[in-house]
Amino acid sequence: MGVKLFSISIGALLMAGCMPGPSVEKSNADSKVAIERMFDAWDKAFEARDLEGTMAMYAPGTELTAYDVVPPLQYKGVDAYRKDYVALFDQFAGPIHVEDRDQHIEVQGDLAFAYGLERMTGKLKDGTPVDMWMRYSEGLRFIGNDWKVVHEHVSVPVDLATGKALTDLKP
Amino acid sequence: MGVKLFSISIGALLMAGCMPGPSVEKSNADSKVAIERMFDAWDKAFEARDLEGTMAMYAPGTELTAYDVVPPLQYKGVDAYRKDYVALFDQFAGPIHVEDRDQHIEVQGDLAFAYGLERMTGKLKDGTPVDMWMRYSEGLRFIGNDWKVVHEHVSVPVDLATGKALTDLKP
Repeated sequence: MGVKLFSISIGALLMAGCMPGPSVEKSNADSKVAIERMFDAWDKAFEARDLEGTMAMYAPGTELTAYDVVPPLQYKGVDAYRKDYVALFDQFAGPIHVEDRDQHIEVQGDLAFAYGLERMTGKLKDGTPVDMWMRYSEGLRFIGNDWKVVHEHVSVPVDLATGKALTDLKP
Repeated sequence: MGVKLFSISIGALLMAGCMPGPSVEKSNADSKVAIERMFDAWDKAFEARDLEGTMAMYAPGTELTAYDVVPPLQYKGVDAYRKDYVALFDQFAGPIHVEDRDQHIEVQGDLAFAYGLERMTGKLKDGTPVDMWMRYSEGLRFIGNDWKVVHEHVSVPVDLATGKALTDLKP
């Protein structure tokens, strides 16, 4: 009878999806490290204007919804967002430098979100220097065997009274 | 011996935090509904310029990090963000109208993120009409007995060539 009670308990745990399995083999701490490494790899690829490396962290197909610094209001799917990156990289002469600050990552199981500040410095093809702090937010899911960004939001604040973008703010 | 094996298994599950308890009583589907209701309540409070109702969904203390449409780059803690809302409400004459579109919520256990588009319409005290589509992203945690926003990001795109905020885009 004691054995049967234990069996029922384990059955209930199985039904609750709580038995160790593929989706809980990784700890939340391990996942956080994996996401940090993915962001570091993105930084390196972005700095080298490596399009494939930059796009590698985004979910394939139609899953990604991105809100970028520049219009439109939203990019639906990774192909649309790729064109945005092509246009961005095309404006720069030489490498871009990225500096991260206050990066914060929260993970539970197969879901995570992250946010932080990011400084982008470089030079446009017409010689104009760029030095801009932005805010980023990411929504992530563990898909297949990797963490992927399914949502991204990057922006600068604006002055609504003057209608100006505030690209020269410092944290 | 059989009984002892079962005991060890349940002990291991307990250590993994997998036994049914307060944090797994709610399903992810229930949580999604609770978060939708919280956002609806925020909409109603915001439209009525009800400061306490508007602030109710944010995590207390220092946990919140918010990136708003307007400067500074970031607000740390709910008290700083409350001042931002006081300043916003003070600019409007009469009620504000909010319209949501493409709201998306993902939940796992005690963690969630959400994003979507939001239109704000109303009239400033000087008579200027406001009609602006924005993008929002939210990071949420189940704290105590409620879902709370621990991260918020609201923005409009900007035109980097002209330095202008794009407050007249439509989805």
